Formats: sequence, structure tokens, C-alpha cells
Amino acid sequence: MPGLWGQRPTDAMLSAMATRSAPDRLLSVLSAFDHGHPALSLTDISRRAGLTLTTAHRLVGALTEWGALERDTDGVYHVGLRLWELAALAPRGLALRQVALPYLEDLYEATHENVQLAVRDGSDVVYIEWLSGRSAVGVHIRVGARWPLHATGVGLVLLAHGEPGLQEEYCAGSLASFTPYTITDPTRLRRALAEVRRTGAAVSTRQVTDDALSVAAPVRGRTGSVVAAVSVVVPEADAQVPVLIPAVRMAARGISRALGWQPRPAVAR
Amino acid sequence: MPGLWGQRPTDAMLSAMATRSAPDRLLSVLSAFDHGHPALSLTDISRRAGLTLTTAHRLVGALTEWGALERDTDGVYHVGLRLWELAALAPRGLALRQVALPYLEDLYEATHENVQLAVRDGSDVVYIEWLSGRSAVGVHIRVGARWPLHATGVGLVLLAHGEPGLQEEYCAGSLASFTPYTITDPTRLRRALAEVRRTGAAVSTRQVTDDALSVAAPVRGRTGSVVAAVSVVVPEADAQVPVLIPAVRMAARGISRALGWQPRPAVAR
Repeated sequence: MPGLWGQRPTDAMLSAMATRSAPDRLLSVLSAFDHGHPALSLTDISRRAGLTLTTAHRLVGALTEWGALERDTDGVYHVGLRLWELAALAPRGLALRQVALPYLEDLYEATHENVQLAVRDGSDVVYIEWLSGRSAVGVHIRVGARWPLHATGVGLVLLAHGEPGLQEEYCAGSLASFTPYTITDPTRLRRALAEVRRTGAAVSTRQVTDDALSVAAPVRGRTGSVVAAVSVVVPEADAQVPVLIPAVRMAARGISRALGWQPRPAVAR
Repeated sequence: MPGLWGQRPTDAMLSAMATRSAPDRLLSVLSAFDHGHPALSLTDISRRAGLTLTTAHRLVGALTEWGALERDTDGVYHVGLRLWELAALAPRGLALRQVALPYLEDLYEATHENVQLAVRDGSDVVYIEWLSGRSAVGVHIRVGARWPLHATGVGLVLLAHGEPGLQEEYCAGSLASFTPYTITDPTRLRRALAEVRRTGAAVSTRQVTDDALSVAAPVRGRTGSVVAAVSVVVPEADAQVPVLIPAVRMAARGISRALGWQPRPAVAR
């Protein structure tokens, strides 16, 4: 294939011309949007997605017509309502949240602290819900935010109860630190995970910010496997952990029952 | 182009071979999922999207790898977590909800009734949030559900404050009915909309189900235009409308201020 001016194409030009599949090109437009870039111009999109302006224009047009993107009067694109309606169908997202919400609200009422619900995706927690009052201060967690498993209370719960091999694979990787207290030693992490399984709750202190403490408990589904985790996040100073653990476990068990979990009988027959 | 066995293609065969664009084919896979069909097999998807099994398999694979779809152990696909994370960026969806949530919670605490937040999309309302206690009965509105504008309290508010031409266009169309009381006469509808603008609230009685009443008020954004609506939905019998209107308006104004709305001064200077 001749390049510009009839010359042989260089390797770089060939590489640039090696096209992704059509689906991948369309999805790369959606990938351009993230929490740091929720609104993008067509030029931003073409640059972030690695597409020519012409291609970006065509794909953005198709996405806008479908409703996945919306264009405002300044010519800036953002994620569209139709995508949100579709996302409402995600069982691990909004559907789980709808079941959990009354229990999260009760936990908030009972403790007056920040309350979170999260699921695992690969080696991250993803926050599905976050309740706090208008006056709450401290840790800022966005709904939809991702954090590494080892650094949060909900993450410790999800890591401790993950599928076989997950814990070893995760502990063998590098553990990012966010404060001077973040657990980055695999041996310490394994001990913490064993403690989570033994006690039924995780207490994560000053791992993400050095002023916060998180108490988390597992949410089980119909089959009994852990599908999510609930936590409260409180200021570390004066945190009343023995008070918080039973309340968080109550919320987690309530949601689990609402999902169809049936606990084993308390007394052996 | 010869058809099978060298014959000339019939109009039907030509029509079948006329392919949608690649983006439209991919989006048709996502379109296959809705509230009635949140989980689909590959065969379901190919049938609902009008694609061959081969094409559906390829597109579903690309979407699954990206995270827009997830496959469970039974080989059934549902909407994936990554799509939900993307949807969290939609300003008219989750972002609006995050700002509004404390006010919606306050309205729930103050009234102990079902509370909703909705936006307009074309000629529909789309419910962005819906709070109710565990024991609430009555109208069932799903988060993400769509309803026609004229049949709900939030819809009347959004229709009354829509862009120029919207009201006339809507009133000129056919108005679906859901109960014997649903307003289907354009003249009655126009009067109701004028009343909404005059009073600052909408009272919608027995329009969707014949046992419910809705009180709704407009939410304004930074520029002053109406961007959403808040409502409570209560049993029609014994509904205390004069009590509900100020509370709903308080919630709507609180959300508006949180969005940057600045009301005109109460006293002319």
C-alpha cells in the first residue's frame, strides 16, 4: 500500500494504519470518558481515543443518535441518559443497590456515619453506593469509584472471601500505598485476611487517608458466596469499633437475606 | 450480486443483505437488553438484535471483553459493571442524583412517603431516583423507568417548563391513558400546565394508578432553567396536599441551590 507521495509506508505508518476492529473503535470513544474527563469535545475524543477526527465524528454521531452520548449547547459531549438506563439493568450495580438501599439507610440512621456498598471487579473494589449526610466530612468516595482491594475495609472482605487463588495472586502482586500505614507487606496482608474470615468483619485503619477507619462485613447471595461488602467509614480518632462491628454485620446480613441467602441453622440438629 | 445458486437476488434477499453500519450493529446488541429482558442468552441476543449468531457472538465477545456485558456461569449475559461506572458520569443521571440525594432523604424523613427525582428525555420522564421505606406500598416505580410526561406529577412539571414549542407539540400528539382519570384531552392538559406554572407545583391525581396522588415541584440548574423535578407519591385517599406542597418545594429549591441556582431577590432593590 503506497503511503503519502507514493513512498513505501514506514513501519510507523503501517502500525498507525493497522486498524482496530469496528467494535473496538466504537468502544474506544466510550473509554475516553472517565471521572477525570466526564465532558469532552470532539477533538478531545478523537485524541483520547486515538481516532481521526472524521472517524470520531462518525462514531460520536452514532452514539449520540442512540443516546449513549449527549451534546450540550457548547458542543461538549457527556455520557447520555440512555446509557444510564441500560446501566440500571446491571445486576451488580443498580439492581444490587436497590435491594440494599433500605439496609444502608438504616445503618446510616443507626450510626450517623458514612455508609458504603461495594463489589469486586478484578483486583479493585467498585463503590456501588455511598450515603452520607450533608454535613459529613472526611473520606470522599464517589459512587463508581475504584480502589485496590487491600487498601479498604470492603476490599479486605472481598479479597478474604474471593475465589480460590485470588488471595495468593493478589498478595504476589505489588501493593500500592496511600498513607504511611497502608499494608504493603504480603505477610501482614495474609494475616489480616485470615482475621477477616475468623471474625466476620474487617477493620481497616488509616489505609486510604490517615484520618479514617473503616469497618466492613460481607454480603452473601443466594448461593452463599460473598457478592458484595458493606462498610462504615468514620474518623479514626475516637472510633468505637466494638460498637460499629455488630451494626455493620446486621446491615450485611439483612441485605444477604434480601438477596436470598439462607444462613445455616444456629444449632446443629 | 448473484444470490444463492446463481439466481438474481430477490428484493427480500437484497433487503436482508442491506447491512446496518458497524456501530449500529454493536448498539443493537445493547438495545436487546431492557427491563423486561435484563439477562439474555447469545441466541436471545441474536434474535432480538436481528443479527446472525456468528455476528452476535463476535459483537458480544467485544462487549464482554470491554466490560459492557458480563457472562454468568449459565452462559447468560447481563449488563456489566463497567457500563454502570460509565453511566455514573452521566450528568443527568447519577451526578444529579448524588447532589440531590440528601434533599430527597430529608423529604422522605419529613413526609415518610415515596420520593422521586426525574428528568425529561424527549416526551418521557425518566426516574433518576426513588426512595421508599421497606414497608411502603402503592405505586411501583423502578429507577430508570420511563413514563409519558402528561401522566405523572414530575412529567407535568417538566412539560410545563420545557423549551418553547414542547408543550404545543406534546399536546398535539396522542395522550395515552392508564386509568379512567388520566388526562387525555389537550385543553385540560394545557390548563393543568398553566396551573403548574402559576402555583410552582403539580398535583397529579390518579393518573397512573387509581389509588395514588403525586405532588411535584421543579428543580432548576445554574442557568435558571428547569432541569429535573422532585415528587412525593402518596395514597390518594386522605392525601394532605396542602401539607405536601411546601415540603416538596423545599426539597426542589434545596437541590436547585446545590446545583448553583440563584433565586431572584425576594424584594426589589
